[in-house]
Amino acid sequence: MKPAVVLLSGGLDSATVLAMARAAGHACHALSVDYGQRHRAELDAARRLACELGAVEHRVIPLDLRAIGGSALTDDAIAVPESPTTGIPVTYVPARNTLLLALALGYAEVIGAADIHIGVNAVDYSGYPDCRPEFIAAFQAMARLATRAGVEGAAITIHAPIIGMGKGEIIRAGTALGVDYGLTVSCYQADALGQACGRCDSCRLRREGFAAAGLPDPTRYQV
Amino acid sequence: MKPAVVLLSGGLDSATVLAMARAAGHACHALSVDYGQRHRAELDAARRLACELGAVEHRVIPLDLRAIGGSALTDDAIAVPESPTTGIPVTYVPARNTLLLALALGYAEVIGAADIHIGVNAVDYSGYPDCRPEFIAAFQAMARLATRAGVEGAAITIHAPIIGMGKGEIIRAGTALGVDYGLTVSCYQADALGQACGRCDSCRLRREGFAAAGLPDPTRYQV
Repeated sequence: MKPAVVLLSGGLDSATVLAMARAAGHACHALSVDYGQRHRAELDAARRLACELGAVEHRVIPLDLRAIGGSALTDDAIAVPESPTTGIPVTYVPARNTLLLALALGYAEVIGAADIHIGVNAVDYSGYPDCRPEFIAAFQAMARLATRAGVEGAAITIHAPIIGMGKGEIIRAGTALGVDYGLTVSCYQADALGQACGRCDSCRLRREGFAAAGLPDPTRYQV
Repeated sequence: MKPAVVLLSGGLDSATVLAMARAAGHACHALSVDYGQRHRAELDAARRLACELGAVEHRVIPLDLRAIGGSALTDDAIAVPESPTTGIPVTYVPARNTLLLALALGYAEVIGAADIHIGVNAVDYSGYPDCRPEFIAAFQAMARLATRAGVEGAAITIHAPIIGMGKGEIIRAGTALGVDYGLTVSCYQADALGQACGRCDSCRLRREGFAAAGLPDPTRYQV
């Protein structure tokens, strides 16, 4: 089996991508980043999902983005919005996907993986610039020049298989591959038990996704 | 004064770049990354240099690249070569400059800086792919798509002012700006006091640089 690095946040999208990469025959090395996110339950979910979805390895790298701040997810002084906003929302974490992909790139080089899988989504996304196809393409072009692998002609490919899918479509695809979405945490302000607030953007998109898929929503909500 | 992020390793090159950015009138926010580098004295040097060279702020972000390994600088099982090697050397840290620039990018967005300065050098460098002008250009193109600033039309510029300079030329430029190179640490295996081995690639390039500049070498060597 060809090794691949799969970025695994513990949310619905990355769990689906891990299932897809495994179904495609990869030996999946899951990578999570503890960046000081408000929703700590996400990392616990990532650990369970890596195991359940057959990752051969799961590394959690600490990278304290609270030292930079600037986002509702990494600065407790900025509240998570509980109704839709316009423009790029305050939950945007500056350069997050650039950092996540950079870590995945280093990890891929070390283990000799030619493929990185990431669960960004440009359809039901929340207006984040680093979830767009043009960002992924530009990162891949940069990665080719950044690495030993690229110089030696074995460039690393960035796969974003759900980038163009709607949330309902993602849920149907993952369900067909056996993903238990009850294990995933999407809420930006999930409590320590992984229970969702039901009010933030991420909760709203998730709820609409299960409705669109015509499947029961296994999310545990705070009472 | 316009704010700028300056990546500061504690070595000769980044100290020069900090002096240049300040001379250009920037309020310099120095950023160092504690990535578990073998040469810890580099970070102590960065702290002194940030202060001496008038940075308005200095942040040190911990990011343990030993969790990834794969380099003589981040894996104690891989020795630092003490004679010239061919190809990309084992001191190459996978995706290091991609990660450093990604952190600088997030920091720049948060503080509202439009400029990032990095001391990569493609002339006297050690064969690292992520020190080449084409890498910097590709990173900048990616950064424009990755960030809120880019989307809102205020793209961040990556400056690599010494990328095309020889080591002697860098040392002359920094000396003219008042850089005390005795405070900088270049050695890949400097001891806790910052004293250099005198044998690694980095020591060799540094020694040749002072000779080329026709200036006394202030490096403290291990006896």
